[in-house]
Amino acid sequence: MTAHTKNNPSMDVQDWIDVDLTLAPGPYAELIDSAVQLKALSWSEKDKLLANKAVYFIFFNQSTRTRSSFLTGLQKMGGIAIALDPGSGIYTPALPGQEIPYATERVSDVARVLSGFGDAIAIRMYGEPAGWVYGQANRYMKEFADWAGIPVISMECDRFHPCQALADMMTIKERLGGLRKKRIVISWAYSGSWHKPVAVPQSLLLASTKCAMDVVVAHPPGFELDEQVMAAAEQYAAEQGGSLIVSHDLEEAVRGADIVYAKSWCSLGHLPRRLGEPVNEAAMVDLFEANRHWMVDERIMQCAGSSASYLHCLPADRGQEVSDKVMDGPQSLVFQQAANRMHAQNAIMARVLSPVSRTR
Amino acid sequence: MTAHTKNNPSMDVQDWIDVDLTLAPGPYAELIDSAVQLKALSWSEKDKLLANKAVYFIFFNQSTRTRSSFLTGLQKMGGIAIALDPGSGIYTPALPGQEIPYATERVSDVARVLSGFGDAIAIRMYGEPAGWVYGQANRYMKEFADWAGIPVISMECDRFHPCQALADMMTIKERLGGLRKKRIVISWAYSGSWHKPVAVPQSLLLASTKCAMDVVVAHPPGFELDEQVMAAAEQYAAEQGGSLIVSHDLEEAVRGADIVYAKSWCSLGHLPRRLGEPVNEAAMVDLFEANRHWMVDERIMQCAGSSASYLHCLPADRGQEVSDKVMDGPQSLVFQQAANRMHAQNAIMARVLSPVSRTR
Amino acid sequence: MTAHTKNNPSMDVQDWIDVDLTLAPGPYAELIDSAVQLKALSWSEKDKLLANKAVYFIFFNQSTRTRSSFLTGLQKMGGIAIALDPGSGIYTPALPGQEIPYATERVSDVARVLSGFGDAIAIRMYGEPAGWVYGQANRYMKEFADWAGIPVISMECDRFHPCQALADMMTIKERLGGLRKKRIVISWAYSGSWHKPVAVPQSLLLASTKCAMDVVVAHPPGFELDEQVMAAAEQYAAEQGGSLIVSHDLEEAVRGADIVYAKSWCSLGHLPRRLGEPVNEAAMVDLFEANRHWMVDERIMQCAGSSASYLHCLPADRGQEVSDKVMDGPQSLVFQQAANRMHAQNAIMARVLSPVSRTR
Repeated sequence: MTAHTKNNPSMDVQDWIDVDLTLAPGPYAELIDSAVQLKALSWSEKDKLLANKAVYFIFFNQSTRTRSSFLTGLQKMGGIAIALDPGSGIYTPALPGQEIPYATERVSDVARVLSGFGDAIAIRMYGEPAGWVYGQANRYMKEFADWAGIPVISMECDRFHPCQALADMMTIKERLGGLRKKRIVISWAYSGSWHKPVAVPQSLLLASTKCAMDVVVAHPPGFELDEQVMAAAEQYAAEQGGSLIVSHDLEEAVRGADIVYAKSWCSLGHLPRRLGEPVNEAAMVDLFEANRHWMVDERIMQCAGSSASYLHCLPADRGQEVSDKVMDGPQSLVFQQAANRMHAQNAIMARVLSPVSRTR
Repeated sequence: MTAHTKNNPSMDVQDWIDVDLTLAPGPYAELIDSAVQLKALSWSEKDKLLANKAVYFIFFNQSTRTRSSFLTGLQKMGGIAIALDPGSGIYTPALPGQEIPYATERVSDVARVLSGFGDAIAIRMYGEPAGWVYGQANRYMKEFADWAGIPVISMECDRFHPCQALADMMTIKERLGGLRKKRIVISWAYSGSWHKPVAVPQSLLLASTKCAMDVVVAHPPGFELDEQVMAAAEQYAAEQGGSLIVSHDLEEAVRGADIVYAKSWCSLGHLPRRLGEPVNEAAMVDLFEANRHWMVDERIMQCAGSSASYLHCLPADRGQEVSDKVMDGPQSLVFQQAANRMHAQNAIMARVLSPVSRTR
Repeated sequence: MTAHTKNNPSMDVQDWIDVDLTLAPGPYAELIDSAVQLKALSWSEKDKLLANKAVYFIFFNQSTRTRSSFLTGLQKMGGIAIALDPGSGIYTPALPGQEIPYATERVSDVARVLSGFGDAIAIRMYGEPAGWVYGQANRYMKEFADWAGIPVISMECDRFHPCQALADMMTIKERLGGLRKKRIVISWAYSGSWHKPVAVPQSLLLASTKCAMDVVVAHPPGFELDEQVMAAAEQYAAEQGGSLIVSHDLEEAVRGADIVYAKSWCSLGHLPRRLGEPVNEAAMVDLFEANRHWMVDERIMQCAGSSASYLHCLPADRGQEVSDKVMDGPQSLVFQQAANRMHAQNAIMARVLSPVSRTR
């Protein structure tokens, strides 16, 4: 897009899309603390904080936590939450070349129209609605942001899930007191469905290395994360004094862990490179089925030790990613973690709705 | 479920699922009065009553009155109403054994997650989403309640519709002044669709016998209500000084009635016993078609007498359950009754959102 | 419908359906000014204006601007916005003779039920949900209004789109300072989809002649507007001192124009006369394809001159109705126009929710 067509190019608008990659460790640490502080306030102390601010929530993918926590959190702070469902409620916002008369509307138009009514746009898009081309959903959100005169917040794209990562870091800090040199295992886990993006582990990897944690990324060969993200995480680890290693052995990886965070994600190598091309589904499923044993069960948590905590962004596929006993057991923090989604997002909304500088 | 896995087992949380069966006559009568009193207040007197309380409304079945009245009533009292539609908006909450990776999420997880954000969960589920197995939707709601740390309100299951019954009793009391020894006919009526649960007549039967009304349950053979519900109603009638008889003759049943409440419901005998088994649809339809004459028309209302009132929970199948002339005529209270849905539910929400004791 | 069945026949309720046809020029001009004034107020000056007023938004057709602007605008004025989607959220409101047990509910019942809970009903319906029979959606809304005890607002039917026209007139007045004798071209334009109603040009035609503009209606033969609307517009032009001519040549039509407003609409001649009959789709498509050249591009805007402004109600089919360069160029007012939707509708809601007289 050329600069002359860009909407409000001079406005200081904060988008919240690639922040895990770009926001510096210092401000990120402050953000974690501000989220914890905001959570501690009673609702009556914050129920006017976003009074009369309207946010559009555009859901290309279903969700339980994201929808419920955003709609609740914003309204509990006095704001106006409007969920928009492409294809049923609204014309589907589409990029040039993908438009269908009377079914879609160009992203640049939708972004500018919504900017005329409300105060922020939040988008959830990954996987199928972006043709499973890695990075496509991320680009889509940035296109929205380029045209919107109001902040655009990612509610998960195919690269990052910044709201989840902030809730994760809040939860870990609440549990461990601090983050520096604490040991976290970010592991792949088996699921009967391969349809899950890498957004959660990638955002968490960046957030945890930024906070100087000792990070182990564990997965079977074939589930490598984005090289650019890995490189950025290595640099954060080096600069901040944490560490980052990769393991192909879950049992070994979890020894001495403070946090075991294991969830499924798809193999980037079996996704199509271009829109319209198919997922290599046979190879994807074979790779998944060859690794059915990557489940967090009691034995794995015993390897980790009794002081280790279990986290998962949910929804968890029970009996596949995790056993019932771990999920419902005393080491599981998953419901505290889910509850923190709302508080993390409230902190983010409070921040971007008082625009200071454009950070994307 | 074992006690150790139960969420917040010690909390005094009021659920609103089986209250028609379990709430004692005294408190129930008080509740009717409190609903009438709440209705009488101007909105400016109650627009902060549930300020900042967030309620999730999970709709497995469509509805006009239930959706509109709950969303309106809660927000007019200052609360936050969030409608969640399983399968489109959110992952479908599922019981163990019925889970599908990335399409469903276990009820115990959804209940605990929502409890971390909001203040109550309301659920509408009967029929198809519960495989038409009688009692299945009721059990589903109780599973939700067992895990939720916040109240669970039934917006109609396959056994009970407590919000409807309370609106019904308000309407009857407003009309008749009192309830004791007033004569109500709760009748089956023909519809071109058999897909209607017994929840409405069963809740009304319990509510009306609790209030010492003289109750006639009228239906063709084959449309018997749940034996446990009938037994409880008989006991309420005996204890409170009302009466309960069953009739298979609509014309005879309505003579001298103060209230004629006739609606369609399915035959419990033709529903499957186990999930996955089919409805005996041929027999169901035959039974319905054999009773096409069970319609409330002018002749039936003449049998009842000019002081009788006509009630229906709506939507009514005109020309099948009821004639246009009755529905739109001077004896019909159906729109006052529908309006009372909102006030009844407001009274229920006001009650359960100030938790005192767990009544389910 | 006979008078005795009409709900609240004596109430002074303002509906907002045919106002473009019926509201006199004087009051209409005042309404434009009141919308401009309301827009100028800060949100804190108007955030209690519709406090506690609940409006139901029934969407038979998808929309981006209409949904977003109504939900935002009402809530920013303190009101309660409830979107209802027929067929999924609620039983589909149906006219007598089109009812299906347990899938639909008669309009007269839905209208009266909603009147018992809330304060206004807004409906969007045209095209497919009304069987493409011209006038059917308009009649449907009036049926709703006949039974509702609260105002009914059209969010676009098959004849009129009064909210769009008011936003259009606000935008033109903001741009030109005044309206009298200003030259507007209301033109058809090509689209790859014929599925667009005549509501927008018809409402705009009535509004602009009422305001004494010099109006050119431009379209290829076969795209004639409703004769009754044309006749009313001619009368407004004559009475108010404006003018109205029809042109079949876009290039000639736009010369000297202050406003070029070009959008696609279907050919009324190829729509069915009765419900259940098909659209003459082959002839419709042929007529469209024969006129692919009716696009507003740079050349057309050059014919109009550099002081001319381009308007479109959106969504626009880029590369069909309009070129990218016009849409995104300096003469385009489309995003200001879209933003005015919210302010226009706020003025309408503020007016009808303080009922004075029934104007339909």
